[in-house]
Amino acid sequence: MTRIVIVGGVAGGASAAARARRMSESANIVMFDRGDYVSFANCGLPYHIGGDIESRDALVLQTPQSFKQRFNVDVRIGCNVERINVASKTVTVRQLATGASYEEPYDKLLLSPGAKSVLPPIPGLINSRSFTLRTLPDMDNIMALIERDKPTHATVMGGGFIGLEAVEALKQRGLRVALVELGKQVMANVDAEMASPLHQAIKSHDVDLKLATAVTAVQEREADLQLTLSDGQTLSTQLLILATGVKPEIELAQQAGIEIGELGGIKVNQRMETSVADIYAAGDAVEHVELISGAPALIPLAGPANRQGRIAADNMLGGDKRYHATQGTAVCRVFDLTIASTGASEKMLQRNGRDYEKIYVHPMNHAGYFPGASAVSLKLLFEPTEGTILGAQAVGKDGVDKRIDVLAMAIRAKLTAFDLEEQELCYAPPYGSAKDVVNLAGFVAANYLRGETDICQVEDVLSPAPNQVVLDVRNPPELKNVGEVAGAVNIPLDQLRERLNELDDTKEYLVTCMVGLRAHVATRMLINAGFKAKNMTGGFKTYQMVNACL
Amino acid sequence: MTRIVIVGGVAGGASAAARARRMSESANIVMFDRGDYVSFANCGLPYHIGGDIESRDALVLQTPQSFKQRFNVDVRIGCNVERINVASKTVTVRQLATGASYEEPYDKLLLSPGAKSVLPPIPGLINSRSFTLRTLPDMDNIMALIERDKPTHATVMGGGFIGLEAVEALKQRGLRVALVELGKQVMANVDAEMASPLHQAIKSHDVDLKLATAVTAVQEREADLQLTLSDGQTLSTQLLILATGVKPEIELAQQAGIEIGELGGIKVNQRMETSVADIYAAGDAVEHVELISGAPALIPLAGPANRQGRIAADNMLGGDKRYHATQGTAVCRVFDLTIASTGASEKMLQRNGRDYEKIYVHPMNHAGYFPGASAVSLKLLFEPTEGTILGAQAVGKDGVDKRIDVLAMAIRAKLTAFDLEEQELCYAPPYGSAKDVVNLAGFVAANYLRGETDICQVEDVLSPAPNQVVLDVRNPPELKNVGEVAGAVNIPLDQLRERLNELDDTKEYLVTCMVGLRAHVATRMLINAGFKAKNMTGGFKTYQMVNACL
Ligand SMILES: Cc1cc2nc3c(=O)[nH]c(=O)nc-3n(C[C@H](O)[C@H](O)[C@H](O)COP(=O)(O)OP(=O)(O)OC[C@H]3O[C@@H](n4cnc5c(N)ncnc54)[C@H](O)[C@@H]3O)c2cc1C
Ligand SMILES: Cc1cc2nc3c(=O)[nH]c(=O)nc-3n(C[C@H](O)[C@H](O)[C@H](O)COP(=O)(O)OP(=O)(O)OC[C@H]3O[C@@H](n4cnc5c(N)ncnc54)[C@H](O)[C@@H]3O)c2cc1C
Ligand SMILES: CC(C)(COP(=O)(O)OP(=O)(O)OC[C@H]1O[C@@H](n2cnc3c(N)ncnc32)[C@H](O)[C@@H]1OP(=O)(O)O)[C@@H](O)C(=O)NCCC(=O)NCCS
Ligand SMILES: CC(C)(COP(=O)(O)OP(=O)(O)OC[C@H]1O[C@@H](n2cnc3c(N)ncnc32)[C@H](O)[C@@H]1OP(=O)(O)O)[C@@H](O)C(=O)NCCC(=O)NCCS
Repeated sequence: MTRIVIVGGVAGGASAAARARRMSESANIVMFDRGDYVSFANCGLPYHIGGDIESRDALVLQTPQSFKQRFNVDVRIGCNVERINVASKTVTVRQLATGASYEEPYDKLLLSPGAKSVLPPIPGLINSRSFTLRTLPDMDNIMALIERDKPTHATVMGGGFIGLEAVEALKQRGLRVALVELGKQVMANVDAEMASPLHQAIKSHDVDLKLATAVTAVQEREADLQLTLSDGQTLSTQLLILATGVKPEIELAQQAGIEIGELGGIKVNQRMETSVADIYAAGDAVEHVELISGAPALIPLAGPANRQGRIAADNMLGGDKRYHATQGTAVCRVFDLTIASTGASEKMLQRNGRDYEKIYVHPMNHAGYFPGASAVSLKLLFEPTEGTILGAQAVGKDGVDKRIDVLAMAIRAKLTAFDLEEQELCYAPPYGSAKDVVNLAGFVAANYLRGETDICQVEDVLSPAPNQVVLDVRNPPELKNVGEVAGAVNIPLDQLRERLNELDDTKEYLVTCMVGLRAHVATRMLINAGFKAKNMTGGFKTYQMVNACL
Repeated sequence: MTRIVIVGGVAGGASAAARARRMSESANIVMFDRGDYVSFANCGLPYHIGGDIESRDALVLQTPQSFKQRFNVDVRIGCNVERINVASKTVTVRQLATGASYEEPYDKLLLSPGAKSVLPPIPGLINSRSFTLRTLPDMDNIMALIERDKPTHATVMGGGFIGLEAVEALKQRGLRVALVELGKQVMANVDAEMASPLHQAIKSHDVDLKLATAVTAVQEREADLQLTLSDGQTLSTQLLILATGVKPEIELAQQAGIEIGELGGIKVNQRMETSVADIYAAGDAVEHVELISGAPALIPLAGPANRQGRIAADNMLGGDKRYHATQGTAVCRVFDLTIASTGASEKMLQRNGRDYEKIYVHPMNHAGYFPGASAVSLKLLFEPTEGTILGAQAVGKDGVDKRIDVLAMAIRAKLTAFDLEEQELCYAPPYGSAKDVVNLAGFVAANYLRGETDICQVEDVLSPAPNQVVLDVRNPPELKNVGEVAGAVNIPLDQLRERLNELDDTKEYLVTCMVGLRAHVATRMLINAGFKAKNMTGGFKTYQMVNACL
């Protein structure tokens, strides 16, 4: 009989408990959580506040009773595991209700204590109107304040996915909302230009978006909070959601002498073992290998937590399962937009000094002639000689998660842009196109990789070299209605062939259009006619996205 | 200057023409089509009839004029290419309007003539109320008859995707509709049980679905057609759509002595070359290698046609691009359901005498606690020792195309079920689950492959061996409300642990529940307790799907 003790009863812990029981009927499994709930849907909390998820009960997937009944797991809630006694192989547990403590022996111990909110050191931050949003009680408290005080204005600090979900939830509840974000963009896991459509959407939903802004002080007053901002302004708000990020919950591990990684997470190997024998860890608390860089990363997401818990369970029972790496696939709904990403971002590649190239495409989510088509703006990052895909980010109204899932799979499989050209994906008018978004991204990248065309970036067009001319091949009404590229000469694509004589073969043409497709045709035409030309990848749409961040 | 002649101006042909021009400004490109349109959206035709696509113009992507303007391609519509003169490297072209014919020389010739309808030899089939649905004029004729005669009843012959789209379109137009299908199922590319939810949906939309039924005679009467059916019944209908399949258009190729493959398509190599020098072929007319079997296959779909045309263009201009194989990824909307598949079907594997195993899962498209969740019923076929994925099929209301696209990618990359366990896909409540449908399919298959659990199929449960007992672990109300498994003993999962003493260790238990999840927990419990047990994969949902086909 193996005595398995689990600290933390939600994503990693509960998954491990369930799997452990499936693998062994004889194991003695005890799962501790200091909270009053286990196995709840943290990810659903914002959606209950917003009203999408009507029933609070829907958020609780298993109870201590149901866990006992189905899995014969001894779930002890309201129990804080205070200490790991490595030598005696026990944990010291304090029952929060009574204050009593006792020791529980283990043969194998799994730590899945999650993460905790990082709170910036701002005077007055902790007060009766400030809340983090991590647990059911957090959610209950926020909803109780809304019910009781009927606030008309709320502020969210932090524009990560939890902050964004909170913003939307509060808007759905009819509040006026300010979002204060320290960085220049929301959703820091994607590159700035890819976040810029989100900024648009957020503002167009009447959210007071304050980027590159810090809250420097909070003063609790009778009926509100007064926030002082780094730009000198003050803001009166009645509810403050603190979504300023999380860090691994490591005190327990640290105290036990378990090795902590360079990023501050519990260090584990592929078997989810910590540095101390018979102690495993999983979920938000651990630091794992990032797939593209091979470097340690903190990726606090539910999918990895669940799968790591499952793997740890098997290994605690003598198995040999491996968790290879995390690639950080993530998605978030932001009003009517979806943003998603997988693998490395450009900033990550830059930080790591990695060679890469990038292309943008903006094709329709499904056949353009079928009603309801909307653009998927996709950025593909790839290794510049072999074409191995390094990362992908997409934003749009529909079909975004599908493309990122397909590309997540491609990245795991170490595929190249050439492979994307060949992919055979679902096509019927309501679902896709004969050349799917993913194929087109492959075409564009592969054209570049094979040297069949050359590309340049918005940055190049913004400051062309003296021998470079920016050539916009859109039709004049588009320039007028949509906007111009600064300093560009305009020759519509369909006139270009006849007007080649207007061009100067000592110049290099940086060609642009709306999304890059017509500019591709033009670039090839110019190259074939003996001119030097490069396609500004992603066209005016990318130009706008980049400019919005400058 | 290379003279490129293209026969057929739609998916394969038009894509080749556009790409050829991008690759060479100097090539002389002539594209013939005997119809009056090129570059039109065949796939959109049913949706214009049904009204989803309002504008007819939306279906025409390029015209001869726009092709000339943008790509300097000489498009000649209304021109039938009647003969290929291999020795002189010319084609004989007849202008249909004048009857005049002439010869056009080529250096490289691309055949992309598509497919033509297969019409069963039924007396009276061709009449003023019968139509195929392949071209814009076909569509116009159907719509004209609807406008003019205001028919109240229509019949569609053939339950492939075009037939199904036609059924839905006609329903949207307010007609009563009968669908007559010779086979026992619609959508022959998927296995029968996976099509059975479609049968339900079709019937629940008041379509008179006649499976395993042939039309044996058609008699045109004054105001209707009288169809005689193989079951002896007759049917009065005012409009008959013939969607009984297609076969490659090969006359031209045949006459020129080009090799025709065993399935009746033009034989091509990976470079899209036919057996005759300088003649290439692409699209519905060709027979290509199927990815899983390596055997020739006819897969008349737009994605392959477009990509083959692109590859042929490059190779005609001296390139060396390869088309490796077709995997037959396909999707179809059938009322509120989506059905999609990729890779091999079970019947294909059986035909090829290939070893395989299969599992079913029915998870929600996104977090169950988020509103609007609906099940994705997924069948995964895999090689039974290494676990290489051979095929996948899915049906459901939402999220079906996404999972099949991800699995299409996995199949191309030759991944295994073990790889699916690790995939890191988008998860936020509106989009997926922490364990996505694809992960769960991987878990279930990998559990089997590693010998951590054993599975059985509905067929086994329908006729258990004498030493086998069928054990249903659902709760009694489910049996009452949803239906029972014939001959099953019922012990709810949450009582099983205490009631193990009721079981007989000389028996083998075939365990079932609603979808297979609880039965998995039960199966593992039984195995851990020393019993012999197998999980009936897919549970009662699969049981119903299979039974519906018997
Ligand atoms: C509002 C919100 C929305 C989210 N949305 C998404 C999303 O859309 N997609 C996504 O992938 N991820 C999302 N996440 C993240 C996801 O929930 C986490 O990645 C996942 O829950 C991590 O699992 P875990 O087991 O590591 O920790 P947790 O699920 O946080 O569980 C840790 C548990 O351990 C307990 N604990 C900690 N220390 C001790 C101790 N010493 N003694 C006893 N108990 C202890 C805690 O009380 C807690 O219940 C969201 C998170 C939040 C808060
Ligand atoms: C109603 C309908 C719905 C469809 N829906 C889908 C879908 O949802 N998804 C999908 O993937 N596929 C779908 N398809 C199939 C898809 O349209 C075809 O696979 C694709 O068009 C094949 O391209 P192709 O170039 O081989 O032939 P086609 O597109 O059929 O073009 C062949 C052209 O060649 C011309 N031609 C033939 N012989 C000669 C000759 N001797 N001289 C001159 N011209 C000639 C014909 O007039 C025709 O215009 C659908 C097809 C139809 C009809
Ligand atoms: C509820 C909870 C305890 C369930 O754990 P679980 O039993 O491992 O997970 P599931 O209910 O998804 O079931 C998955 C198991 O059923 C199996 N399964 C699922 N469908 C199946 C089917 N149709 N046939 C056979 N087996 C099936 C899987 O293979 C897996 O078993 P395995 O791990 O032995 O391979 C745990 O996921 C949890 O607490 N979740 C809530 C917390 C959380 O994740 N929060 C963050 C996200 S909001
Ligand atoms: C309309 C038609 C002629 C277009 O052919 P096309 O120009 O090859 O195709 P697209 O318009 O999709 O453009 C694709 C090209 O633009 C490029 N492209 C697309 N977006 C781009 C971007 N943002 N940046 C750079 N290049 C881009 C692609 O790389 C590709 O060029 P390549 O082949 O040189 O690599 C042809 O697809 C057609 O006739 N279609 C209708 C018929 C049909 O397909 N029917 C069946 C389905 S309904």
